[in-house]
Amino acid sequence: MRNLKITIQYDGTRYSGWQRQKNALAVQQVLEDCISEVTGENIKVIGSGRTDSGVHALAQVANFRTDSSIPEDRMPLALNSYLPEDIRIIRCEQVDENFHARFSAKAKTYLYTIINDEYGNVLWRNYMWHIRQRLDVRKMKQAAAHLIGTKDFSSFRSSGSSTKTSVRTINDISIDCEDSLIKVWITADGFLYNMVRIIVGTLVEFGMGLYQPDYMKTILDTCDRNTAGKTAPPHGLCLVKIYY
Amino acid sequence: MRNLKITIQYDGTRYSGWQRQKNALAVQQVLEDCISEVTGENIKVIGSGRTDSGVHALAQVANFRTDSSIPEDRMPLALNSYLPEDIRIIRCEQVDENFHARFSAKAKTYLYTIINDEYGNVLWRNYMWHIRQRLDVRKMKQAAAHLIGTKDFSSFRSSGSSTKTSVRTINDISIDCEDSLIKVWITADGFLYNMVRIIVGTLVEFGMGLYQPDYMKTILDTCDRNTAGKTAPPHGLCLVKIYY
Repeated sequence: MRNLKITIQYDGTRYSGWQRQKNALAVQQVLEDCISEVTGENIKVIGSGRTDSGVHALAQVANFRTDSSIPEDRMPLALNSYLPEDIRIIRCEQVDENFHARFSAKAKTYLYTIINDEYGNVLWRNYMWHIRQRLDVRKMKQAAAHLIGTKDFSSFRSSGSSTKTSVRTINDISIDCEDSLIKVWITADGFLYNMVRIIVGTLVEFGMGLYQPDYMKTILDTCDRNTAGKTAPPHGLCLVKIYY
Repeated sequence: MRNLKITIQYDGTRYSGWQRQKNALAVQQVLEDCISEVTGENIKVIGSGRTDSGVHALAQVANFRTDSSIPEDRMPLALNSYLPEDIRIIRCEQVDENFHARFSAKAKTYLYTIINDEYGNVLWRNYMWHIRQRLDVRKMKQAAAHLIGTKDFSSFRSSGSSTKTSVRTINDISIDCEDSLIKVWITADGFLYNMVRIIVGTLVEFGMGLYQPDYMKTILDTCDRNTAGKTAPPHGLCLVKIYY
């Protein structure tokens, strides 16, 4: 039985998120149904982690075990012909039997995109957060610098999260600004529930001038979700890389 | 009675194009219904020109006459609250009573976007033409250079067009290539039916190495649609500027 690792793109707009659930359509369910159909087996797919409803992925990773004789390099074509056009398999490779998309992941990068002008862009409305008020990107960068490193990110976690520790390591946050597009790239060894969206929502409040950049240290120190900013909307968020 | 000029963005994916028609939903119809609703008048909107089904616009221009007391600068907000989210008014200004969105237009710029890699990008699937075969952009640029100027573009016109002359002036074609994105910008004093899409479809065949760049002169000289390439699909095309 082979263990196959697949890399998946999806437009999260019409899904309830990655994880299979009862009364809503999830990406995992569509994938499992499709791979089961194509292989004739009852397939369970292990994802690298959940994404929320409306969040996108350009390189989500998952693995599944199969006895199918379809060669790895033919698998994307075979699956894509059955999948809806908002989910695409872009790579498939056989991996060691111990490979586990979630537990083997060493780090992940998310990209959050903001369009900061008067009217936004109608073509990108499902993929960027449109903010009218002019943001001071320099202040956002200064505030973001305080988040890099191994820290307790309790202030940036939504309630309902059940993970034991709230300590994570953010390896890098970089903020690019070109014309009206602000792109926030965050790489960490793991993320708490809604962590990226709360970080971005908080950075935006720094960009609006509500706080001086050093106040980010205070937010971290309180370990209190109420001191951080609002949760940024899901549609600006995209999972772009998993490191193994 | 004021003559108002509006600038409109739309995602053409779910529309049958700009022009109102019987058994399909057009952008013009949605706009006219919305402006009529907001002003309480029976509004007719004059567009700068048609766009095909599936073609997008970031700055389509139209004008309409109204006795409404809504100030110009409040009009976008008033209309956008009624419009579907795939149509946005981004500007409104009062213009001379003689201004006519179509007849006053001096030139237009279209942008055609190609994504040239193995799998494309699921988030851009409705806004770019995905081509797997590697394109030689240098050859596309060389071929495009022959199109600049005042010429008979009969070879780049779909049948069904009723315009008298097929002579147009292309002021500029520029082709940018960054990573896997190829952007073709074309500015002309006017376009024949499907002209941009046939030009792009033809340039792609040069990029595939089917012809040497000089063959573009022959295609022009024949004045025969059959010598040019295929019509590029509509979803990669976007109307980006009208010059008055």
